[in-house]
Amino acid sequence: MDYRFSSHVERLQSSAVRDILKLTQGQEIISFAGGLPAEELFPLEAISDAAQRVFAAGKGSLQYGLTEGYLPLREQLCGRMAAKGMQVEPDQMIMTTGSQQAIDLIVRVLMEPGDVVLVENPTYLASLQVFNLGGLRIVPVPSDKDGMIMADAERLMREHKPRMVYVVPTFGNPTGRVWSLDRRKGLLELCSRFGIPILEDDPYGEIKFNANDYFPTLFSLAGAADGGGVLYTSTFSKTVAPALRTGWAIGDRRVIQMLAKAKQAADLHSSTLDQQTLDQLLREFPLDEHIRRIGDAYGARLGQMENLLKSQNWPDVKWITPQGGMFLWLEFPEALDTQALLRSAVTKGVAFVPGAAFYAAAPQRHTARLNFTYTEGERMALGISRLAEALGEFTARL
Amino acid sequence: MDYRFSSHVERLQSSAVRDILKLTQGQEIISFAGGLPAEELFPLEAISDAAQRVFAAGKGSLQYGLTEGYLPLREQLCGRMAAKGMQVEPDQMIMTTGSQQAIDLIVRVLMEPGDVVLVENPTYLASLQVFNLGGLRIVPVPSDKDGMIMADAERLMREHKPRMVYVVPTFGNPTGRVWSLDRRKGLLELCSRFGIPILEDDPYGEIKFNANDYFPTLFSLAGAADGGGVLYTSTFSKTVAPALRTGWAIGDRRVIQMLAKAKQAADLHSSTLDQQTLDQLLREFPLDEHIRRIGDAYGARLGQMENLLKSQNWPDVKWITPQGGMFLWLEFPEALDTQALLRSAVTKGVAFVPGAAFYAAAPQRHTARLNFTYTEGERMALGISRLAEALGEFTARL
Repeated sequence: MDYRFSSHVERLQSSAVRDILKLTQGQEIISFAGGLPAEELFPLEAISDAAQRVFAAGKGSLQYGLTEGYLPLREQLCGRMAAKGMQVEPDQMIMTTGSQQAIDLIVRVLMEPGDVVLVENPTYLASLQVFNLGGLRIVPVPSDKDGMIMADAERLMREHKPRMVYVVPTFGNPTGRVWSLDRRKGLLELCSRFGIPILEDDPYGEIKFNANDYFPTLFSLAGAADGGGVLYTSTFSKTVAPALRTGWAIGDRRVIQMLAKAKQAADLHSSTLDQQTLDQLLREFPLDEHIRRIGDAYGARLGQMENLLKSQNWPDVKWITPQGGMFLWLEFPEALDTQALLRSAVTKGVAFVPGAAFYAAAPQRHTARLNFTYTEGERMALGISRLAEALGEFTARL
Repeated sequence: MDYRFSSHVERLQSSAVRDILKLTQGQEIISFAGGLPAEELFPLEAISDAAQRVFAAGKGSLQYGLTEGYLPLREQLCGRMAAKGMQVEPDQMIMTTGSQQAIDLIVRVLMEPGDVVLVENPTYLASLQVFNLGGLRIVPVPSDKDGMIMADAERLMREHKPRMVYVVPTFGNPTGRVWSLDRRKGLLELCSRFGIPILEDDPYGEIKFNANDYFPTLFSLAGAADGGGVLYTSTFSKTVAPALRTGWAIGDRRVIQMLAKAKQAADLHSSTLDQQTLDQLLREFPLDEHIRRIGDAYGARLGQMENLLKSQNWPDVKWITPQGGMFLWLEFPEALDTQALLRSAVTKGVAFVPGAAFYAAAPQRHTARLNFTYTEGERMALGISRLAEALGEFTARL
């Protein structure tokens, strides 16, 4: 059979991270590439106990569930959202297969092929994939360490009439960037004026290295019961475990209802075993304490990676110390193409993600994303020394 | 915010089944409406034990997984496929969130808005929703008890140049229909001649009331390593439990690779806790014996429902006894609109699905789908007597 594929899927690039992982299969590679949480911090026993309580509740726990998600979990999650200044009812929430699916469903519900979405530059790679799959035109907004530059955002809104703005305001991926309060309010004001919905993606917001930091979400700043034009997505993948594949979206009831209609067609509902397990977990397990432990541990790992990098004395390698999240964003000298560096690095047994993949346009090819949460101690040190070796040989050849 | 929704989602009807379930909330309704398996047959202990073995394997079991699905599960599942005459390798298979997601991903990968899909008439309601969400033109092919009528299929292929044919050849939903061997071969020949891929959806094929029945899948009849143009989907929802939300697709490697690219954008991967639990289950639990028990039990429930219906002596109510699956398809006299009957039935405390929703065009409004797997014994008898009462009052008013 001579299959013909849909044009949007044909154009879809396989993820750079994924391709690198394929490259490294069968080799002993220390990977700073993936966005993997630290396995040793997964609350395995608590999850196992929670699952046992689900099974103990009887065979009804194995039946089909609601498309919107398991109601007791949504109720508990509304409490968690309220504690972060987001007052929502369970019918303003839909549970999804990771927050990735929430992004995909929002695109399917709000966007038509050819519609424009504004994004930070650089931004989360897999959201770019969703936008490409949806046939969207992706317009990147010039951004600095404080977020999108508002003058550019306004100009591009007038020029392109976007149907959505996608942002990761707290601990952005790949940069770790935290938007300033001014920029947060600025974007809300602009989007309200132009009538543009905001998709606020917040997978990392709880992973803070200083527990006292507080970065209000756009949803909470909008100060409206319906989110004031903000759709907010998050996930348990980083705070509990990725295998449970449970994320969610909150927002205006009409949008949630449309998302439920689309999700009903897309997969009926996400795993109810996972959702019930999370519901049981939240009842007995001190999740907020656990999240603080994760933040402390990740902060320490970041510290180790920064010390290792500083000790290399690489000339002209810069980064901004992130205050949370899972990634360190490096800028090498402009002449250095990190895609080429990666090929050398892999032969030395270390991997990272070249930064170009995160740009919707005008890629800065001298950037790289390093994950600091999956490795630690000697293994992290060995990885950085391998990277140093690769960089030494590579620059000698330039 | 004045949200504008995408045209395909705006047009999407909420499922008739779902609306009925909403209608019945808070009331004590005996439902023949849903497609729910019998809860008392779920292998709860075996699933619970399997999950414990997954947790016992350590924290790595809670990490992110492959988009294509958990490899050991795919390997075991290839063995099960081979036992049904479908010889595939793990890289010809992708695991999905129920087979519903497999259908959605196949549409996203192979179809463009405006493309034509041929379907049986009537056919599976939620597949019609996926096709609508994808903006497809749905062209129903006149069908009888043996499947699509080939002369009509050929005529409509010439006329509409479809990009896909969607069929449920074994124990179709809603009709319970089993395609004859001639029609199966006929469709394969036609689609091969016209170069049209077939999506063979087989969620019920293993739920047989006579264990010795054998209905070869289109995929196996095509007799080609790559499926010969057939993409086959199935699920554990009916044979193990729906809560684990695990289905799969098999077919040509290039299509599977494209499905993986689309799935990576759609949700990265399905629950790996569910997939690992199923993998462990298949290692220790005699699933084929269990499936035979399900088939025997459902056959007995069908027998009870048929006896109850016969004892009502309703004039001009017809059905064909299904040989498997979960549904009985009733034809009332042509003047009787089952949507109106449903409203009466719900006031009496019983629900079913009016048949019109299953038709892509030219709905036969005097049809109804009754599920016979979720209720049994006195509860089923009470449900049918309530339906009789509703029908009596309803026809008296006609």
